[in-house]
Amino acid sequence: MSTNKVQPRIMPGFMELLPEDQIAFNRMYDTIRRVYERYGFLPLDTATIELSEVLLAKAGGETEKQIYRFNKGDTDMSLRFDLTVPLARYVAQHAGELSFPFKRYQMSKVFRGERPQKGRFREFYQCDIDVIGVDSLDIVYDAEMPAVIYNVFKELAFGAFTIRMNNRKVLNGYFEALGYADKIGDILRTIDKLEKIGRENVEKELAEFGVAAADVAKILDFLAIRGDNDAVLEALRGQSVDSELYRTGVEELATVVSYLRRFGVEESAFIIDLTIARGLDYYTGTVFETMLNDYPSMGSVCSGGRYDSLAEYYTDQKLPGIGISIGLTRLFYQLKENGLIASTGACIARCLVIPMGDEQLGAALTAASAIRGAGIPADVYYQSKGMKQKMKYAAKIGVPFAAIIGEDEAAADTVMLKNMQTGEQSPVAIAELADAVK
Amino acid sequence: MSTNKVQPRIMPGFMELLPEDQIAFNRMYDTIRRVYERYGFLPLDTATIELSEVLLAKAGGETEKQIYRFNKGDTDMSLRFDLTVPLARYVAQHAGELSFPFKRYQMSKVFRGERPQKGRFREFYQCDIDVIGVDSLDIVYDAEMPAVIYNVFKELAFGAFTIRMNNRKVLNGYFEALGYADKIGDILRTIDKLEKIGRENVEKELAEFGVAAADVAKILDFLAIRGDNDAVLEALRGQSVDSELYRTGVEELATVVSYLRRFGVEESAFIIDLTIARGLDYYTGTVFETMLNDYPSMGSVCSGGRYDSLAEYYTDQKLPGIGISIGLTRLFYQLKENGLIASTGACIARCLVIPMGDEQLGAALTAASAIRGAGIPADVYYQSKGMKQKMKYAAKIGVPFAAIIGEDEAAADTVMLKNMQTGEQSPVAIAELADAVK
Repeated sequence: MSTNKVQPRIMPGFMELLPEDQIAFNRMYDTIRRVYERYGFLPLDTATIELSEVLLAKAGGETEKQIYRFNKGDTDMSLRFDLTVPLARYVAQHAGELSFPFKRYQMSKVFRGERPQKGRFREFYQCDIDVIGVDSLDIVYDAEMPAVIYNVFKELAFGAFTIRMNNRKVLNGYFEALGYADKIGDILRTIDKLEKIGRENVEKELAEFGVAAADVAKILDFLAIRGDNDAVLEALRGQSVDSELYRTGVEELATVVSYLRRFGVEESAFIIDLTIARGLDYYTGTVFETMLNDYPSMGSVCSGGRYDSLAEYYTDQKLPGIGISIGLTRLFYQLKENGLIASTGACIARCLVIPMGDEQLGAALTAASAIRGAGIPADVYYQSKGMKQKMKYAAKIGVPFAAIIGEDEAAADTVMLKNMQTGEQSPVAIAELADAVK
Repeated sequence: MSTNKVQPRIMPGFMELLPEDQIAFNRMYDTIRRVYERYGFLPLDTATIELSEVLLAKAGGETEKQIYRFNKGDTDMSLRFDLTVPLARYVAQHAGELSFPFKRYQMSKVFRGERPQKGRFREFYQCDIDVIGVDSLDIVYDAEMPAVIYNVFKELAFGAFTIRMNNRKVLNGYFEALGYADKIGDILRTIDKLEKIGRENVEKELAEFGVAAADVAKILDFLAIRGDNDAVLEALRGQSVDSELYRTGVEELATVVSYLRRFGVEESAFIIDLTIARGLDYYTGTVFETMLNDYPSMGSVCSGGRYDSLAEYYTDQKLPGIGISIGLTRLFYQLKENGLIASTGACIARCLVIPMGDEQLGAALTAASAIRGAGIPADVYYQSKGMKQKMKYAAKIGVPFAAIIGEDEAAADTVMLKNMQTGEQSPVAIAELADAVK
C-alpha cells in the first residue's frame, strides 16, 4: 500500500458484518419485524439526532456520560441512546394525532459511547415494542407482550426459551410490609444480581443496607419460591403479607398467567420468578426477562415491563404503558459466538445463471428474468472468464443452484441446472426454471 | 403544561412521520429492497459513525462543511454523509473476504448538516446499489443498473418514468476534440444546469469559461440531438468527432441500449439524453438520471453511473464499479407534496377483533390467533370501553375489517365481521376468518 493511503478501518465497538452474516442478521431482523406487525404494532422511525435538551430531559449518571453529544452551529445535539425516550417525546408531541392505545414498534440503531469490551457495542440495534394508553391501559397487554416474545423466539428457532415474569407490586408490597419502604430501590438492585453474585453476597449487601438478619433470610426464602405457575401463585396467596399492593400484584400475576394460556403460549415457556426485579425505577408492575434455556450465560435476550408514566418530562398527560426490547446486535453476536448462526452462503440469489460465452448472454438474461418474474432472487455471471472460474465463483458464494447455458441450451430454450450441494445436474426448460429453483 | 416540562420537539430538517405515512414509507422501502434482492444484490449495513480520518479521506469543500463531526474522548469521529465512501472503505478493508463482482445494496440514513429548506433533509435515507469489480467490470452491468431502476419504479407504481442515459466518454471525447480538454469539468457542470437555467444562461456561462462563440453553438446543437434511441445512436455515429474516446463512448451507449432490450426494459422507459452529465468528477462512463414523466419539477429521483476507481484513497487495487442511488426521504416528501401517497389508514392490522365485553376476551384472543396463524396482522381492542367508542377507534385507525364478538358469537365460535369501508356485516366462523380478511 502506498504511504499516502488511509488505512480502511472502523472503530472498536462497532459491528460490521460480511455478507453471509449480514444475510443471517437480516433474516432475524425480518422475523422479529414480521411478528411485531402480526400483532398490529405500527412502525415508527424517529430521528437519530435530537436536541440534547429534549433527549436528556430525564437522563443522568451513566447515560449522560455515555452519550454522543456535540454542537453543530449553536445547537447542542445528541445521538439517541435508546428508543424509549424518543418514543416518549414522540407520543407527547403527537398525542392529538395518534389513536390510543398506541402500539408501536421501532427497530433502529442506538448509540452509547461505552468502554468497548467483548459483546458490548457502541452502536447497536434495539427492537422495541410498546403499548401506550391514556390514563389507563388494560392488563391484557401485560399478557400480549410475553405472547409476542413467545412467537418471536418460536420463529427465530434458537431452541427452548423461558420467559420469566414477576410483578414489581409483589416485591414492593412485600418489602414495604417488612418495613423497608425507603430501601426498595437498593434491595431490588441487589436482588437483580442474585444469579450473578450468589446468595451469600446478596445477604452481605442487604445487611449493609440495614436489612435485619431475620428479614434477609425471610426475603431470600420468599425469592426462592419455585414451582409451576399455579403452585407459585398458590404460595404467594398463602403468604401473610400485610400489604394491599402485594395482593394487587399477586392477582395481576394470576391474571397475566390466565391470559397467557388464552394467547396459546405453551406453559413450559413462561414461569413466575420472584428474583426478576429489573433494576430500573421506571417499572411499576409486570416485568419480564427471557432466557435461552441452553445458553443461560447469554443472560436475558428480551426484557421489559409495565410503567405508569411514559412521558412525564414532556407532558402532564398520564401515559401508562408496557414495553419490551430485544438487543439484536448483542443477541446476534452471542448466537454467533455459540455457533448458532447457520451458514447459508454469501448469497441472496437462489440461482446463478452462467452463460458459457458472450453469445449466450441474451439467453442468460431471459433465464434470469424468468426466475425474477416469479419473485425469486437470481443473478447472472457477466464477467468474461473461463468456465472453471465461473463455477468456482458459484461455489464460493454458496448459491443453491447454477443454471449453465451453452450453445445447445440457448438453442433449445433450456438450461443445464446444477444443484450446487448435491452436484446433480439436468436440463430444465426456461418455462420451468422458477419452479425448479424455488 | 407545567413550566418544568421540556417541550417535545425535533430539529428542523429531520423527517418524522405519523404512523399512516410511516406505513406508506415502509412500503416503498420494502419494494425497493425486494427488487434489489431479486437482482442478487447483497445487504450491507456499515457503521453510522466512522473515524473522521477515514470518512473524510477524500472529502473537501461543501461536504466537509456539512458533516456532523465531533470528538468523544480523544477520537475524532463523523456521521456518514453518503453510502459510497463507507462502501469504498468496506471493500478496501475486506477485499480478501468478498467475492467479485461484489453486488451490494445498502438502504440507510445518511447525515448532512445543510441549511434546512423545503424538501431538503439533514437526516435522510439513501437506497444504493453498486457492483464492484476487480481490475475490470463488464459493460452488461451498465445495463443491469437501469433494468433494476426500471423494475423498482414499475413496482412503486407512481406513473410513467424515463431513465435518461448518457456516457461521459461521449461528452469528454467531444469536448476534447473541440480543444477544451482542460475545461471539461466546468463545461459539464454548466451543461448539467441546462434544464434549470435555460439555453441563454448556459451560453453566457460557457462564454465566460472561454468557449468560443462558434463552439458554444456547436455544443448546444450537439446536446440538442433528440429522437428514439436508434436515431440518436445513428446521429452520434454520424458526427465527425476526431476522438477515440468519443467513439468508444458511443459504442458503449449502443451496447447498453441493446442489452436493455434483452433485459426486457420497455423502449419508452429509457432514452439517450446528451444533456445528462452528472456534476461529479467521479463518473467515467455510463451515467443515468430518472424522471417521473408527470412531475418533472421533482428532478431526478434516481441517479448514478460508472466509475473507474471506487477506493483509491484506501487501496492501490483498481476497483471499477457502477452504482445508483434513490434518495428515499426526499422522494417520499415530494410524492406526498404532489398527493401521490395514498392514504391507507394508520393501521398494520387487516382486522381489529372487538370483544363486546370482558367475558368475550377469550374468544377474541382465539379469533386473533386464527388470523395471525395465517401470517395476517390482526389486533384486539382490549380497553374496557363502550361499543360506540370501540367502533369509533376502528373507524379512526382505518382498519379494513372489524370482527365483533358478543355472547352469541362467542358461543357459536363465530364473529360478526364488518367491512369497515362498505359497512356490510355478516357472521363468519372462526375457522374461515383468516380467509375472509385476507
